[in-house]
Amino acid sequence: MKNNGENSGWIRRVSPGLKPPSLSDNTADVDRLIKGIRKSLGVEDVGVDFSLTGRVSASLRRWDYQVSASVYHEDGRWHLIDISNARDGGRIFGLALDLGSSTLVLRLIDLETGERMDEISFHNPQIEIGADILARIHFASREGGLFRLQGMVIERLNEAIEGLTRKHGISMEAVAGMSVAGNTTMTHLFLGLSPYWLCREPYIPVTNRPGLIKSSDLGLAISPGAPVLVSPNVGSYFGGDLIAGILASGMNRQSEISFLVDVGTNAEVVVGNRDWLMACAGAAGPALEGGVADMGMMAGPGVIDRVVIHPVTRAFSIGVIRDETADVPQGKGPVGICGSGLIDLAAQLFVAGMIDLRGKFVETACGERLVEKDGIRHLIVVTAEDSGTGSALTLSQTDMDGLIRSKAAMYTILTTIANTVNISFTEVGRFYVAGTFGSYIDPRSAITIGMIPDLPLETYVSLGNTSLEGAAMALLGAGAKESLFQIRDQVTYLELNVNQEFMNLFSAAKFIPHTDRSLFPSVAVGG
Amino acid sequence: MKNNGENSGWIRRVSPGLKPPSLSDNTADVDRLIKGIRKSLGVEDVGVDFSLTGRVSASLRRWDYQVSASVYHEDGRWHLIDISNARDGGRIFGLALDLGSSTLVLRLIDLETGERMDEISFHNPQIEIGADILARIHFASREGGLFRLQGMVIERLNEAIEGLTRKHGISMEAVAGMSVAGNTTMTHLFLGLSPYWLCREPYIPVTNRPGLIKSSDLGLAISPGAPVLVSPNVGSYFGGDLIAGILASGMNRQSEISFLVDVGTNAEVVVGNRDWLMACAGAAGPALEGGVADMGMMAGPGVIDRVVIHPVTRAFSIGVIRDETADVPQGKGPVGICGSGLIDLAAQLFVAGMIDLRGKFVETACGERLVEKDGIRHLIVVTAEDSGTGSALTLSQTDMDGLIRSKAAMYTILTTIANTVNISFTEVGRFYVAGTFGSYIDPRSAITIGMIPDLPLETYVSLGNTSLEGAAMALLGAGAKESLFQIRDQVTYLELNVNQEFMNLFSAAKFIPHTDRSLFPSVAVGG
Repeated sequence: MKNNGENSGWIRRVSPGLKPPSLSDNTADVDRLIKGIRKSLGVEDVGVDFSLTGRVSASLRRWDYQVSASVYHEDGRWHLIDISNARDGGRIFGLALDLGSSTLVLRLIDLETGERMDEISFHNPQIEIGADILARIHFASREGGLFRLQGMVIERLNEAIEGLTRKHGISMEAVAGMSVAGNTTMTHLFLGLSPYWLCREPYIPVTNRPGLIKSSDLGLAISPGAPVLVSPNVGSYFGGDLIAGILASGMNRQSEISFLVDVGTNAEVVVGNRDWLMACAGAAGPALEGGVADMGMMAGPGVIDRVVIHPVTRAFSIGVIRDETADVPQGKGPVGICGSGLIDLAAQLFVAGMIDLRGKFVETACGERLVEKDGIRHLIVVTAEDSGTGSALTLSQTDMDGLIRSKAAMYTILTTIANTVNISFTEVGRFYVAGTFGSYIDPRSAITIGMIPDLPLETYVSLGNTSLEGAAMALLGAGAKESLFQIRDQVTYLELNVNQEFMNLFSAAKFIPHTDRSLFPSVAVGG
Repeated sequence: MKNNGENSGWIRRVSPGLKPPSLSDNTADVDRLIKGIRKSLGVEDVGVDFSLTGRVSASLRRWDYQVSASVYHEDGRWHLIDISNARDGGRIFGLALDLGSSTLVLRLIDLETGERMDEISFHNPQIEIGADILARIHFASREGGLFRLQGMVIERLNEAIEGLTRKHGISMEAVAGMSVAGNTTMTHLFLGLSPYWLCREPYIPVTNRPGLIKSSDLGLAISPGAPVLVSPNVGSYFGGDLIAGILASGMNRQSEISFLVDVGTNAEVVVGNRDWLMACAGAAGPALEGGVADMGMMAGPGVIDRVVIHPVTRAFSIGVIRDETADVPQGKGPVGICGSGLIDLAAQLFVAGMIDLRGKFVETACGERLVEKDGIRHLIVVTAEDSGTGSALTLSQTDMDGLIRSKAAMYTILTTIANTVNISFTEVGRFYVAGTFGSYIDPRSAITIGMIPDLPLETYVSLGNTSLEGAAMALLGAGAKESLFQIRDQVTYLELNVNQEFMNLFSAAKFIPHTDRSLFPSVAVGG
């Protein structure tokens, strides 16, 4: 992505070519710099924050007024970030951050070429306080808890920034901007804002639009004057990560209607086009993230992401995620199954007649794979000998029931929002699937179990980490940054009422693929 | 000064009348406040600095969303200062500060009515480091020196603010803005900016337009988000105090041409009208501030400010400054003479024939009042018996020579600037005299000795503390604030070249009233 045309950079470097002061030109240091930047940019309005005043004057003199200046645009005017010695070349860099509750992903970008220079991911250190968000919100209201949580993330980020910049031989001061997308709670904790009311009726964030914050106000180890763009949220349950995701999908710029689905612990769904955007979020169930099944895991090396069952022999063929760069021993056998693997497994079991319309194991078809533990039936997916854990990987009837509820919830949410905006699925041009889940899911399998609508497979597009991608886009482009806030204002959030109609839809969706088979013409009748 | 009409306040209080959030209106706290302020002000653009975000949310909840908000206007948008409990009435106050090198004067103002509530003055604690500015500039370049100097002023101010607010029963947080006018060096020290280059060729300030600074960035004990307006400077030798002075005089709004003279250690002179402003500064001599004569003092209680000499008997009638509120014992007899008293004395001595055209004592006329000490002639002004010090107050020939040089310098500066802009003194509609000196000076006496032009007495207007008055005006009115910066840009600074022409003018002005008697037709020939 190059910074040119309409969507040009809102963080820039200019070389004002200042002349040193003299008796005949005794303009003050800061005013001289401002004048030079104005001329370079061809604009009237350039501001220098008071905190930079003394620093700028000293630096101008140290470098004989031969300086480059980094600047950013906000509220109709340009603001100084920092100056550097013009003889040093003065490239400027930026960081995009996907601020996940379990994983942080940090991308280093050349702000002038748009080049993606590096990308690293690491655990959110707040997991130590609690894996789930509610535990962290609870911890935040303890004495000093909020600042502890904020400090953990900032410190870990600073380590990562230090490592990234050292690796690429650039100074931390050359990092002139950052763009952050996270859910509303993660954003609050990152900013040191109390998340107390996010989980309490009527679920009010401290702020919907944190906007631009000076990096020094957050203690980030980049240029102290660098702006940190924080993606806005719609409310407690629809955060900046999803706003960034919409931006990354491009659905807000298209005339055709698209769906965007991000499946994590919650399923977040957006439908719309350039004229309107409707969003909702619901508990589609942790099953889809591998959080329910005994053998369920987050997608990662050693985890099953593909299952094929031979329709006649019912032999299992298992695909495992490999990581070329990881230290994890490869080929040790699978250690668990991720959400997309689970969907594949369920679809294949159904096609092979090993589960029925209600997702119940069919004893005759499952044969020896079916065992009973504590009165609950389990299907052996990988035997103890073949597994990487030393124990058999099994799927219980309970797990399968959970998956059915999750897929039914997802389909119900999709149906509800489609009904609300009065469109039929066939009007949908693109169906974007975001997130790690989206990267691995096989739409064919998801359709087979009736989790997503029976649309032509090419309708489904996997987008990967849209939160990170949107953050990077907003970091690089003035138009993209503006879009972020336009999207926020454009999104209508649909509160899902779990009313009788919803429950009726949900009950109908609890069959594979659905009570109404006409909705899934492409799915062969199994069993 | 009321805040209405065109020049309405740029610091205001609004009562947005917020509704608490509910499930049907889950706008975030800060966004809710912004929306309310927008509606109250009828504007689109309202910003909340990140540093206030957490505080605002907590306060909204503490006061059940029944809040008043103080806001200020800058760069085309309104910014939140703070919120307060609407039930508390929520008046807002401001401070205007004359940041003098020897004296600070602080005025407390009701920002909504414009009422002047109180005014106090106290010594600049930096005097401890050095009475003159160069000593402080020198000290500032020592390790930690700059911050020591800044800290001294801020601490002393905070004590004063604490006292003022306590006296009037208002909270320090209710002080929502401050306006400061001082010379360029005092301003740099106040802001913690290095004054190193102010006294070194080519005399470059760090900044000409410090503009608005958050009070918390300066450590001032008022509302942390309160804007501190710092009057801009033209350069090292023409500071924000004079820009504020021009604003206070109103000469920049008049069609007729005015002079504005501020006499301290330097004489600062501005001439112009609403279309143009020309300024210069020169060493008119400390004599005028009482800094030269042995008996010279700053104007203050017990100090001679008026002298009348009977033209026939040559009996002295001495007027002394009294202070009803002071603890200083009154009626003890005079302790010294201030600049205006000195001018009165010189004029009366001349009229009584006791000094000649060159300012030399006339032995026959002075009689017994003339004594000789160390080979220098002294005139006894107050005998030891009548003086408040126990010693006679005397004026030496050296003192008188100094006064003649000072008055000649002043007249030469006025003539030079008038010649530069090609006007004659008779075209001057108003001649404003600022400062303590201006409050006490008798224009008749100043004309008699040829210090100021021989214009009708009603031309001369004493303005008092124009620096403070201008600061207060800029604090209260958006138009006045804007004018401050317009004046700065409008002023052309005339570098006084002490060339042959200047020296010729100076020599001619060293007579009483002048070599060219036709310039002073109103002055009776003495001696």
